[in-house]
Amino acid sequence: MDRASDIGEFGLIARLTSMLPRPANVIVGVGDDAAVLRLSSGQIVVATCDMFVEGVHFDLATCSASQVGWRAMTASLSDIAAMGCRPLFATISIGVPRDTLVGMIEQIYGGLTDAARAQAVAIVGGDTVRSPAAIVLDVAAFGEPVADRYLTRSGARDGDLIAVTGYPGQAAAGLEIILSSARFGERGDEALVRAHLEPQARVEHGLFLAQIDAVTTAIDLSDGVVQDLGHICEMSKLGGLIDVQKLPISSPLSDYCERNSKNPIDMCLSGGEDYEVLFTIRKDREEPFIAGWRERFDIPVTVIGYMTAEFDGVQFRDGDRIVLSHRAGYDHFRQRDS
Amino acid sequence: MDRASDIGEFGLIARLTSMLPRPANVIVGVGDDAAVLRLSSGQIVVATCDMFVEGVHFDLATCSASQVGWRAMTASLSDIAAMGCRPLFATISIGVPRDTLVGMIEQIYGGLTDAARAQAVAIVGGDTVRSPAAIVLDVAAFGEPVADRYLTRSGARDGDLIAVTGYPGQAAAGLEIILSSARFGERGDEALVRAHLEPQARVEHGLFLAQIDAVTTAIDLSDGVVQDLGHICEMSKLGGLIDVQKLPISSPLSDYCERNSKNPIDMCLSGGEDYEVLFTIRKDREEPFIAGWRERFDIPVTVIGYMTAEFDGVQFRDGDRIVLSHRAGYDHFRQRDS
Repeated sequence: MDRASDIGEFGLIARLTSMLPRPANVIVGVGDDAAVLRLSSGQIVVATCDMFVEGVHFDLATCSASQVGWRAMTASLSDIAAMGCRPLFATISIGVPRDTLVGMIEQIYGGLTDAARAQAVAIVGGDTVRSPAAIVLDVAAFGEPVADRYLTRSGARDGDLIAVTGYPGQAAAGLEIILSSARFGERGDEALVRAHLEPQARVEHGLFLAQIDAVTTAIDLSDGVVQDLGHICEMSKLGGLIDVQKLPISSPLSDYCERNSKNPIDMCLSGGEDYEVLFTIRKDREEPFIAGWRERFDIPVTVIGYMTAEFDGVQFRDGDRIVLSHRAGYDHFRQRDS
Repeated sequence: MDRASDIGEFGLIARLTSMLPRPANVIVGVGDDAAVLRLSSGQIVVATCDMFVEGVHFDLATCSASQVGWRAMTASLSDIAAMGCRPLFATISIGVPRDTLVGMIEQIYGGLTDAARAQAVAIVGGDTVRSPAAIVLDVAAFGEPVADRYLTRSGARDGDLIAVTGYPGQAAAGLEIILSSARFGERGDEALVRAHLEPQARVEHGLFLAQIDAVTTAIDLSDGVVQDLGHICEMSKLGGLIDVQKLPISSPLSDYCERNSKNPIDMCLSGGEDYEVLFTIRKDREEPFIAGWRERFDIPVTVIGYMTAEFDGVQFRDGDRIVLSHRAGYDHFRQRDS
């Protein structure tokens, strides 16, 4: 008989999802960053949830309690952001072992509240229960589109450009630094550690993307470029071709990789939990889009490839050479070292 | 330093709740069955979440996997029902140990799906993660009022009658039967066990209550009459007086208690997880209300007492004698025997 570890996180999600009916008021169900739902008035809302488990998603030895809360809230708000919607409300369920210090629970709550407040999101309810061993957090967030347009993972067209916000891979390097207990002597390293511990949900950026008709899909980089672009390819029934030379590598990441004999491209492609946004946009609108972006935002946006009908799945090219990724993102059930 | 077990579930909730800001679009925040929220269009929605943890809220030795799912979904839908609103959508997060059988996870999901389908609720998303030891479920549900009226725990007035749907206490007796491994030879016992394992969210009943102006408050009986009426008293700044002779005791509960030398009144007052609805209604509207109820519903509605400004808190009277409850509902952190 299959066990959860045999079929993996995505196998399990596929099995469970196939059991769900899809009524008419569910416009986008399971399988995107958030669900898109129609209320009886016709109003559209979006909803998502993310569970964070101690020992699986966080470790209080390497992450402060308030950072745990911040990251959990950011994961859910980022899902709403990637739909091009504005998050408005969140509910929080927290399970804690009986001997957990109240001060620590308050710090987790403080981090949740800070991350919510940073995006003008209200925490409106929750459940507080006992858990036998690990601390468990679940954040359900919901929001609404602005001007009735939202973004999904499907709808990219042949030739659309693929772009990313910010510098993917920094959070993965930050986690590596923390886990290796390296000193944070270098200023750049602090930026990488902060990218892991205090990621930012790209809410305003997502709303801007949704308001541009030429933007055809979006997803947040919670599992890394390889895996998340894979979702867009699958849902849009196209291939995605990335020119690895175009990947935005920040100087802190570049410095860190040079000092530690690591490949920044691997880190940029496979690192998760950056909560940057990857999206597709019609090729003929690249220039005005980039100009508009730069007027509004400090973080960069970088075109890294294009969608194609020539093949399925994701290809990464370095010049003429096809570089296949060997790491397909993070699978909670299959990972062996945690 | 305080630990979770020192201050208890309600102490912890109070500490955490005090940290939350309450923006203008949050009409009812933490502290009711569900939050009441205003979208930017003015549309009102309600949201709630409930976490179920293996070994705390359920035990797969005494409850089938599909019943675990059914109960978890019902707990959340019941919160929406007690607001007098229609649940529409739910998200589910599930954490499972790596060696959990996929078939068991599918059975839990089957129970969640069945309970959702029974109320025409769509499961629209979720998260599936690894948990180190226990299975953890979190169900976030949301919905909307019908005809713009919803019910809260505040707003009861001096002299309002207190009423309950169905037969509170049956689920507690059912759990007792399961835990004592008694044989279910008696037909009545089966009804009690079913009340625990397959409770029904009172959605249509809650919607009916919300449409009657004379109904002033409502709450679902998840923690038992003593504790849940206590919440209405606290939020409405009134006392509640219950005539224990008026409590609706079902014949299965009465038979079970007689055979086992137990007091059915204690069980009716302190038993939780029935998911019946307790509500208050203006005294002068009792007769037409009861007549209207009986036209629509098979389950009984029973007036058991009234709200009063003469004292604070909850009093239970048997004739002239004041009977105080000694058990104040279920506290996940303080309970010693689980």
